[in-house]
Amino acid sequence: IRASKTETVARAIESLAVRGAPAIGVAAGYGVALAARSASASPDRIHAAIERLRRTRPTGYNLFHVLNQMSETASKKSINLSQSLTRQAERIHHEDAHSCLAMARNGLSLFSRSECVLTYCHTGALATGGIGTALGVIKHAFLKKRVAEVFACETRPIGQGARLTVWECARLGIPVTLICDNMIAALMQTGKVDRVLIGADRIARNGDTSNKIGSFGLATLARAHRIPFHVVAPTSTFDLSLRSGKDIRIELRDPREITRTTPGLDKVKGVKIWNPAFDVTPARLVTSYVTDLGVIRPPFKW
Amino acid sequence: IRASKTETVARAIESLAVRGAPAIGVAAGYGVALAARSASASPDRIHAAIERLRRTRPTGYNLFHVLNQMSETASKKSINLSQSLTRQAERIHHEDAHSCLAMARNGLSLFSRSECVLTYCHTGALATGGIGTALGVIKHAFLKKRVAEVFACETRPIGQGARLTVWECARLGIPVTLICDNMIAALMQTGKVDRVLIGADRIARNGDTSNKIGSFGLATLARAHRIPFHVVAPTSTFDLSLRSGKDIRIELRDPREITRTTPGLDKVKGVKIWNPAFDVTPARLVTSYVTDLGVIRPPFKW
Repeated sequence: IRASKTETVARAIESLAVRGAPAIGVAAGYGVALAARSASASPDRIHAAIERLRRTRPTGYNLFHVLNQMSETASKKSINLSQSLTRQAERIHHEDAHSCLAMARNGLSLFSRSECVLTYCHTGALATGGIGTALGVIKHAFLKKRVAEVFACETRPIGQGARLTVWECARLGIPVTLICDNMIAALMQTGKVDRVLIGADRIARNGDTSNKIGSFGLATLARAHRIPFHVVAPTSTFDLSLRSGKDIRIELRDPREITRTTPGLDKVKGVKIWNPAFDVTPARLVTSYVTDLGVIRPPFKW
Repeated sequence: IRASKTETVARAIESLAVRGAPAIGVAAGYGVALAARSASASPDRIHAAIERLRRTRPTGYNLFHVLNQMSETASKKSINLSQSLTRQAERIHHEDAHSCLAMARNGLSLFSRSECVLTYCHTGALATGGIGTALGVIKHAFLKKRVAEVFACETRPIGQGARLTVWECARLGIPVTLICDNMIAALMQTGKVDRVLIGADRIARNGDTSNKIGSFGLATLARAHRIPFHVVAPTSTFDLSLRSGKDIRIELRDPREITRTTPGLDKVKGVKIWNPAFDVTPARLVTSYVTDLGVIRPPFKW
């Protein structure tokens, strides 16, 4: 998708063509810069573009973090607003790429030997401005011979694991096995999973973490099997204005995302569909958080 | 599917056209009777038909329970083997229907008020010779105003919940909401699930229960949320020759059952797929077993 207008970027985010909290942030930065570069640019139009992008998806925090930065830059007196917003968007992009590398380096300390890790949804290069969050750590650890094998989960209803994670692993020669989301407990029961690494869309001040729907169940199963469970996210994912996960707004998405894979289901009358895009994992289930600034553990004191 | 040969029945079971442990048992009984009714019938051919049906699916016990009964009848001296095997198959079918009704009556005692229940996979009329096992209990309890709402899970990769459970509930006017398998924990977190009811494919002497892949994870999540978890199965599902779930053989199925819903996935080289059809829920996670003979609780003494 080539975008020359903010609206194209906004729709790409809404339709999940661009997804992954950090990638959404990076795309939104450029989306604002596009508004400043158009022939009809004005401070009002730039702020309207920021508001349009704010309405795309409610749960991931990086989007709002980036839009706040862009808004600040847009409010400054500048000879060339277009240039300063473009540079700011590029800076955000590069910072995210650097942040991925920092997480990958920090995350290496998790592994004491060559391990089999399970990951969920997709948190790689296609979800960020760099090599990825959880999958970035996994890639780096694989190169350093601390990861032997990856288990990827389908991640219904969009299938980010089946479509993206296995592709990214296979491309890099990382041994990868795909399972359905309902096979996680049975796989853990075999003793094959040493560690779980996931990403995050928004983390509250106490460490409660919203991430792709299914993450909370995965964390509960990891705890029941005494498997370490790590959240990998840049510090821009922490929303310090929220006391706990109860304050995180969870996006409900179109039921057709679920029904479209079952022919005829949309014609059965009287069936309701529940399609939350995220859930909230309480901090007590998280072993540690791998961030660009280091590995941290709850409880947090800010 | 109209079957006039054992082979047609065997293939219908292998391809999951007939599925659900009790329905497989009923179909297998008729499959043996068909061998006895053919023009070329002989005791050897009948026993070959029994062996053919034995090789269809390894995990569900009702199949073997029925084939043992048919084998015993086939070994008896009889003037009309065809007639006696047909009558035996019909008896097995009718017993299963009666057994469903008995479970439905026994299961009513679980509910003290109008409840919201979550069920998994499909355990209704299309999975048994009668009204169903877990879904049979739910239907009866709905008629008696003890069930207000049903939550059904998709059940990847075959989608028995999305294709069959919601259809059977909607047809009977039972309010039903479909979720993906990875939404169970988030739904339980909302407090909306009062009770979980599932079926079973084989139950060991100690109560360890093999059922559709995902059941063990569901049981773990129910325990973490202190939600009662019930297994509904006819006594013919108990395999008293097995000490525990460790002795249950789990069927691994074709990876294409998983890959076919993700276009292009089969072309990504180097991706392994793990596709177990069942998992084993340890007895400690089961609140009670609803059988045709009554509601029982572990530990069992036989």
